[in-house]
Amino acid sequence: MKKIAIGLLGLGNVGSGVVKLLSDNADAIESRLGARVEVKRILVREVDKPRLVEVDPALVTREVSDLLHDPDIKIVLELIGGDDPAREYVLGAFAAGKHVVTANKLLLATHADQLLDAAEQKNVDLFYEASVCGGVPVLRALREGLASDRIDQLLGIVNGTYNYILTKMTDERRAFDEVLREAQAQGYAEADPALDVDGHDAHHKLAILVALSFGTRAPLGSIYREGIRHIAPVDIQYADRFGYKIKPLVIARDIDGRIEARVHPTLIPKRWLLASVDGVFNAVYVSSYALGHSMYYGRGAGMMPTAVAVVSDIIEICRDILAHAPGTASARMRRSPRTQRPFHDIGDLASRYYFRFSVLDRPGVLAQIAGVLGEHAISISEVVQEGKREGGERPVTVVVTTHMARERNVQSALAQINRLASVVERTRLLRILES
Amino acid sequence: MKKIAIGLLGLGNVGSGVVKLLSDNADAIESRLGARVEVKRILVREVDKPRLVEVDPALVTREVSDLLHDPDIKIVLELIGGDDPAREYVLGAFAAGKHVVTANKLLLATHADQLLDAAEQKNVDLFYEASVCGGVPVLRALREGLASDRIDQLLGIVNGTYNYILTKMTDERRAFDEVLREAQAQGYAEADPALDVDGHDAHHKLAILVALSFGTRAPLGSIYREGIRHIAPVDIQYADRFGYKIKPLVIARDIDGRIEARVHPTLIPKRWLLASVDGVFNAVYVSSYALGHSMYYGRGAGMMPTAVAVVSDIIEICRDILAHAPGTASARMRRSPRTQRPFHDIGDLASRYYFRFSVLDRPGVLAQIAGVLGEHAISISEVVQEGKREGGERPVTVVVTTHMARERNVQSALAQINRLASVVERTRLLRILES
Repeated sequence: MKKIAIGLLGLGNVGSGVVKLLSDNADAIESRLGARVEVKRILVREVDKPRLVEVDPALVTREVSDLLHDPDIKIVLELIGGDDPAREYVLGAFAAGKHVVTANKLLLATHADQLLDAAEQKNVDLFYEASVCGGVPVLRALREGLASDRIDQLLGIVNGTYNYILTKMTDERRAFDEVLREAQAQGYAEADPALDVDGHDAHHKLAILVALSFGTRAPLGSIYREGIRHIAPVDIQYADRFGYKIKPLVIARDIDGRIEARVHPTLIPKRWLLASVDGVFNAVYVSSYALGHSMYYGRGAGMMPTAVAVVSDIIEICRDILAHAPGTASARMRRSPRTQRPFHDIGDLASRYYFRFSVLDRPGVLAQIAGVLGEHAISISEVVQEGKREGGERPVTVVVTTHMARERNVQSALAQINRLASVVERTRLLRILES
Repeated sequence: MKKIAIGLLGLGNVGSGVVKLLSDNADAIESRLGARVEVKRILVREVDKPRLVEVDPALVTREVSDLLHDPDIKIVLELIGGDDPAREYVLGAFAAGKHVVTANKLLLATHADQLLDAAEQKNVDLFYEASVCGGVPVLRALREGLASDRIDQLLGIVNGTYNYILTKMTDERRAFDEVLREAQAQGYAEADPALDVDGHDAHHKLAILVALSFGTRAPLGSIYREGIRHIAPVDIQYADRFGYKIKPLVIARDIDGRIEARVHPTLIPKRWLLASVDGVFNAVYVSSYALGHSMYYGRGAGMMPTAVAVVSDIIEICRDILAHAPGTASARMRRSPRTQRPFHDIGDLASRYYFRFSVLDRPGVLAQIAGVLGEHAISISEVVQEGKREGGERPVTVVVTTHMARERNVQSALAQINRLASVVERTRLLRILES
């Protein structure tokens, strides 16, 4: 039986999952591949730390050169995450002629060009299925299944923590801070939650999806990003009343050759399949020319789901190695990812909007607001004004949904409205998606 | 630019979609593959028939040997459907050393062994992504994405017509016959609907899914099949009242090494994602050891969705040809598909059940029925008895749901109950799935 040796950078959650999966399903993988995948070296920071899986102590090293200079090791798994030293190690692996599998969305979202160039120079592969939606093979579906199709739009829920918090807020009508604290206590959210709840993680993943779906460079600066901290339970209740659910979406569209890409909480119709993607689950909903609508759904994070994706990439590379045809990964991109297509500025966006105004309950306030919206070509669809009218200075909530309007106009209208004397709080804005 | 020539058997709906897709997206495919895919010959029954797409008349032939003996043609697309001559042609293509892509579920479900043997002998590929769920790359996901995972259960809605009719019956509270006639008039259902509404098509597709998911031969005789003709609007209403939707499911599980596989309409909780898969849409919901739950959703039929799947297979074979590594398709199966694993008989099934009894409204009838069920170790969960009690001989409906029971016991209990003097109609049985 042939052997293919691999090296792991990192033995945390994902690394341990990979070791476990390769060992638990060794027979099935072996019979399918006609070769054995063998973990030969594992880079760790602390050699003597307790581990989630048992590994032969002889495999563990603190020296990255033990992996990079071992000629037996054909595939390096980068499971450290973050920027350097991960990037450095990956480039080192390429320089040594090794294939790389990574789960690192930040690296792909910020250094794709450099990494793909380095891989191509050495005719080796870079696979990263685990970087988006964990074990759900959505990158594989986009790259291979829809290879001949033309993608028009992609909607996704790609951060489990983000979705979990919003789901809890919706189902239990609780406030953001409270749900976040609970999620942190339970280990569902990081101590520093910014990566998740401010949308950075989703931002990185959308960059990867855009590059693959639309065949373009996707600089993070071209993709609008907004988190969920500003959502209050009352917004979820109004959304419900209007027939919507608020979901933490990533959205990308090809509008006549120009790409629109954005990450923000969005009101979507309750009847949509995406509206039922709750808790830590992820989904990507694709609209394409030939296939129409399709959706890929599953657990986007966690030790074993991520390991499934990493191991599927290992198997694909092994297959190419055994067929003496490695280095074909970049050829499998939909188009050269180094084309730079034009992107829309968020100001160009045409959308329906939800506004929540906090105003003093004075006569004429609504007329004033409506006037400013009208001046900016924003036409109102529905208005709900609530709160006890006890006369005078008690603030009340006014919620407005609009017909299609231009983001640029919306921003300047809201800036003007926020300066009105009777507006006591910064107006909350959410976007509505319906088609 | 390199060229890879292909030959089409059939230029109906799917064949025309493939020609259209290859031509509409020729540039994208070419830049991705580094080669051009060229349709060189097309087998048709009538040369002068009007076509859905324009093709060079010189390509069209009535002689299959024009394709099979053309040494330029590397890949043959079998898009005729049915058994012979499709099978004969596919074997002919293999004998001539050509790769085959097919959308033919019947062929795969009934002759997989023979076809895989023939392909293997000549070291050529057989791909069939289009045979299940059209353009949704579910076979690719099972084969590659979940390559290292172990599948425990698979639930699917895999026939669009079947699902469309049940959805209409549910949403519009109309009878089967009426909805079927309308679907036939609109072209959604065939003149002979048996293939769809009696579950034959789903049966073939489940055989393919079982073979791929569990690595086994899956003879049709080992898979239980039941259609939807016996479902009345009243069943849909009772299901709704109990919190369920009736969906045309395919179900397969690995229960301690023995496979359970069945096709029948099933009551599932309304909150399940599968319960929202409506109309002509298909979905496959997979539960696996490492990934947990995942779902693949989209249009399961139609000219362009099916063409997307066929072309994705063409591209995969071309990639292997260009890498000088063809013939690896069967190596990509999860396990040897020629292992025969044991299957459960439907009598072994443990399930919850829904019964609809039509009985004369006499005192003691319910006690009699409950007695027979009790004797067969079937314990009742809920009972609803309706109909005006005008005394005496008017039949009323009694609906019963059960706790977990054994199908074998259920069948003999119902046979006994159907013989009771106060039971005026054959009892309707549906199965409930909840976990």
